[in-house]
Amino acid sequence: MELTAEQQAEITEAREQAAITRRATVPELESILLQPLPVLDHGFVRVIDYMGDDAAIVQAARVSYGRGTRRVQDDAGLIRYLMRHRHSTPFEMCEIKYHIKLPIFVARQWIRHRTANVNEYSGRYSILDKEYYLPEPGHLAAQAKTNRQGRDEVLSAADAARVLAILRDDAERCYADYETLLNEDRDGNRLDPDRPGLARELARMNLTLNTYTQWYWKIDLHNLLHFLSLRADPHAQYEIRAYAAVMLETVQRWLPITAEAFSDYRLGAALLSARALAVVRRLLAGEQPTPADSGLSAREWRELMAVLGHDG
Amino acid sequence: MELTAEQQAEITEAREQAAITRRATVPELESILLQPLPVLDHGFVRVIDYMGDDAAIVQAARVSYGRGTRRVQDDAGLIRYLMRHRHSTPFEMCEIKYHIKLPIFVARQWIRHRTANVNEYSGRYSILDKEYYLPEPGHLAAQAKTNRQGRDEVLSAADAARVLAILRDDAERCYADYETLLNEDRDGNRLDPDRPGLARELARMNLTLNTYTQWYWKIDLHNLLHFLSLRADPHAQYEIRAYAAVMLETVQRWLPITAEAFSDYRLGAALLSARALAVVRRLLAGEQPTPADSGLSAREWRELMAVLGHDG
Amino acid sequence: MELTAEQQAEITEAREQAAITRRATVPELESILLQPLPVLDHGFVRVIDYMGDDAAIVQAARVSYGRGTRRVQDDAGLIRYLMRHRHSTPFEMCEIKYHIKLPIFVARQWIRHRTANVNEYSGRYSILDKEYYLPEPGHLAAQAKTNRQGRDEVLSAADAARVLAILRDDAERCYADYETLLNEDRDGNRLDPDRPGLARELARMNLTLNTYTQWYWKIDLHNLLHFLSLRADPHAQYEIRAYAAVMLETVQRWLPITAEAFSDYRLGAALLSARALAVVRRLLAGEQPTPADSGLSAREWRELMAVLGHDG
Amino acid sequence: MELTAEQQAEITEAREQAAITRRATVPELESILLQPLPVLDHGFVRVIDYMGDDAAIVQAARVSYGRGTRRVQDDAGLIRYLMRHRHSTPFEMCEIKYHIKLPIFVARQWIRHRTANVNEYSGRYSILDKEYYLPEPGHLAAQAKTNRQGRDEVLSAADAARVLAILRDDAERCYADYETLLNEDRDGNRLDPDRPGLARELARMNLTLNTYTQWYWKIDLHNLLHFLSLRADPHAQYEIRAYAAVMLETVQRWLPITAEAFSDYRLGAALLSARALAVVRRLLAGEQPTPADSGLSAREWRELMAVLGHDG
Repeated sequence: MELTAEQQAEITEAREQAAITRRATVPELESILLQPLPVLDHGFVRVIDYMGDDAAIVQAARVSYGRGTRRVQDDAGLIRYLMRHRHSTPFEMCEIKYHIKLPIFVARQWIRHRTANVNEYSGRYSILDKEYYLPEPGHLAAQAKTNRQGRDEVLSAADAARVLAILRDDAERCYADYETLLNEDRDGNRLDPDRPGLARELARMNLTLNTYTQWYWKIDLHNLLHFLSLRADPHAQYEIRAYAAVMLETVQRWLPITAEAFSDYRLGAALLSARALAVVRRLLAGEQPTPADSGLSAREWRELMAVLGHDG
Repeated sequence: MELTAEQQAEITEAREQAAITRRATVPELESILLQPLPVLDHGFVRVIDYMGDDAAIVQAARVSYGRGTRRVQDDAGLIRYLMRHRHSTPFEMCEIKYHIKLPIFVARQWIRHRTANVNEYSGRYSILDKEYYLPEPGHLAAQAKTNRQGRDEVLSAADAARVLAILRDDAERCYADYETLLNEDRDGNRLDPDRPGLARELARMNLTLNTYTQWYWKIDLHNLLHFLSLRADPHAQYEIRAYAAVMLETVQRWLPITAEAFSDYRLGAALLSARALAVVRRLLAGEQPTPADSGLSAREWRELMAVLGHDG
Repeated sequence: MELTAEQQAEITEAREQAAITRRATVPELESILLQPLPVLDHGFVRVIDYMGDDAAIVQAARVSYGRGTRRVQDDAGLIRYLMRHRHSTPFEMCEIKYHIKLPIFVARQWIRHRTANVNEYSGRYSILDKEYYLPEPGHLAAQAKTNRQGRDEVLSAADAARVLAILRDDAERCYADYETLLNEDRDGNRLDPDRPGLARELARMNLTLNTYTQWYWKIDLHNLLHFLSLRADPHAQYEIRAYAAVMLETVQRWLPITAEAFSDYRLGAALLSARALAVVRRLLAGEQPTPADSGLSAREWRELMAVLGHDG
Repeated sequence: MELTAEQQAEITEAREQAAITRRATVPELESILLQPLPVLDHGFVRVIDYMGDDAAIVQAARVSYGRGTRRVQDDAGLIRYLMRHRHSTPFEMCEIKYHIKLPIFVARQWIRHRTANVNEYSGRYSILDKEYYLPEPGHLAAQAKTNRQGRDEVLSAADAARVLAILRDDAERCYADYETLLNEDRDGNRLDPDRPGLARELARMNLTLNTYTQWYWKIDLHNLLHFLSLRADPHAQYEIRAYAAVMLETVQRWLPITAEAFSDYRLGAALLSARALAVVRRLLAGEQPTPADSGLSAREWRELMAVLGHDG
């Protein structure tokens, strides 16, 4: 992630502005407000704005006239209760707005979450930056064999080098050809004066899917936590997980009580099916249930034993 | 609207808290933050929190690194352009949270707007306040004759008095019986020690639809403006319009440029159908179109002539 | 639930119409299509239309050119996999439309589910039916003591009779006064020729919250299952649970494979928090965890032991 | 668009299945059900399923017990009234499901419409087809000068040939390299036995944005019409407009009355701002308003005069 001097100056100037407010304010989050937090090789997450704090969740749950807080202890108890019993509406009363730079193929996974507001940098209106994602060698992995969706062993150094050379060459060539098609540099000057530039909305189709895009993305806390529970999960693709990890840290700064409840009741929790619960009950009763008599598939059995820390 | 001393104290205390923030801040809105703005006889609208300002719309539309503002003049031009061309996503980048007290029959219209977050005071968990809506005599009107949905002439003083007596008596009796069913006062003391209180979730069914409820309601600006365009409209029922009018004033404080564009392109605008446009073109060409040859229904013709200020 | 002769005739006529279609069709659901399924004393659930079947979920998950089905066995495996791993989008590819008659206080809980389409019978436009909900004595219960939200022991016959008398009298009187305010019978004839009728949109505020309303309600399968998981839950109020139970039966007719997976992975499942899982692991390792050293609240401990069928 | 023999056989087989249903059925739409309707060079739109007909809109608006239809004449009047007065909920009672093949850069515009259900072909799980979009020469146009977003004059034959050569070469090379990275053919056989294949979720990032993807996309009628009003508009990019045009034809088959109302009140209509209306009123009064005294920008003035068919 390299910001231009101009971008850096804009951020610095914006961070220097301060105002007095009556709104719920969180100093821990204010301290990183507007700053780009690096993700992948050229991406970032910036917290642009936020609404509410842990107390605001309590305030909404109680439909209060004043601030939500009674005592931090009480607030934590209520927040844990709300999270445990899936009372989602008080968590919708907090909102956060991010500025995110991310590869297009990650953006395509991300946008599947529909309960957010988004403004993407327009490739019809503007020229996209020359930035594309190249994985670190340690993240280049072979197709998983047991799972049609996912990665397995990391490639050898030689194989990784071969892959990166292909990715780099194709991205470079496609971007160079994008510029040729546009026939225009970033300042709007025509490169070849004797021919027209192709419309931006058409030229962009020549770019590869690892090209970076950027957007403003705004979401309420309940839906953010749902996003994080899916995208910080080991089943998610590494690249989007890298963003989720950074965003989870911003939530920990912003709403420490909620973040802890989320960790306990979502991230570290497990949903046990009716059949899985029956197995657990039999185990606790001293029985020896087997995969065959459990009604679970082989895969479910393995997953359950892993969750239970049991050797099955 | 009469707040209890305790509620008033909570609000006063909350308003006295101030913090420094790097977020976009709007002094004109801060000045009324948390204060109840009266609506109808016992209702109110309170702005609890907000995110963004006019510049934040510009900032999102440009996917900026810094504040959106270049010059106020430019910002206004862009906001008007976005509004005119239905580019709605930048307007979703502002958010506002209200605390609202309103009659249940108004709440039932309001909740039809689904793109908002809401936490309502729970009649399962708590006892509802003894407050019910009684219209001012000037708002008691007969059923419209030309329109199956709507009001017509205001009732005479005698008829209004008769109506109000019925509404008051039934609301009073139903609330008194609600208390009898609960068998519990507001402090949780049993009234009749010899019998149990009916569960709150059941007792509430005895209340009338003009009983007041309250909720926290949070929405993005785009959807708020959509709500206002429908609910500040003369076709909306007076009671919900009264809320929309007060909320529109909060938008004018918060986002003066957007509020003006909204007034020009939505509230004061008219959608002319293809057939209506054909009539206008014929009028401008000096022709004399008639309802019969226009393809418009009699009602559409009247509405068009009213919009055009034409005697048709 | 008593339909008028006219309503019954309309339903009978509609059920006699048949057409040939290339769409996915489910005879088990067709057999009850359009028929009112009774709920509570005057309510009903009618399935009006539906889109898709179990195979359509598979078809969408595979983005198939043909029908989804390979073998029923495979389909069931994939549907269970999708449900287990929270791949919700294929379940959104089925849709169902209901016509529902329900008390207003139930409608107010129901409408909190925002991801549905709804057309409610309009009290501005039409006169509401004289039908109100009176619980059966067996469902009249005292306020729960351990839980601020919920019911406890059923009332004695004498107490129940007292409660029902109050509910009936108030509903009767309020409805009679509603008619007086309207000054109009169901055929539009004025009752008292010497005074005007109050506008319907105003008169309705005099009705009690147990008055029945009705609506068309349409939702995709994923969101319907979410609705059912919350509303068929013992924490939900009995009255809305009664609707959820009937709707769950319609899902079992419509999508037997999905309904079974839903039963296993949602209705009969339990979400164990990180702390709860730690307790289970200790139990399986032969340790004796206690509430005090578990990090669980007393209530969470009780709930966990109940789920595990363990005496704690 | 070239389907494989297997795909064509699946479609043919699916179309041959027929069932009896009590649901609302539209023979005009059934006749094209499941058939691919070509769009662009390799894309298509297939109607997979639908719910409702014109009468279903009326039925929901009236919350009817029987079919909506009284007389076609009445239904048309009501549908026009609902469309004119923005009563959107009855239109949400119809639903349609499409299978669509489209270039990724079009999919990225499309997915901004959030009120739909979507299942996309997964590049993590499967290998994408070797199909990429190459515009016809007549659609290759220069960047618009007066409008930062859009196209202007069509390129000369020579310029177009140059552009197409670049687009084709880059897409071909990137796809060939994608196969090299995967090291696997479509039947899952390894190409080079001595090295591993890169995970599919990574290899796909090498593809260009004109590569075709496909998805199942399901939406209610109200939101579909909103989509079409924006995407069948001349301001939309040609490529997505091509899809909107074909989908509009499917709506005309499905719901002829609604389609006609939509054409009159949306597609052929114009929203006149308060200032624009003032200009029209002055013109009708015989005055000579000028851009300068109108309060309109130069661009708004031109657009208004175009709408009015006036020489300004």
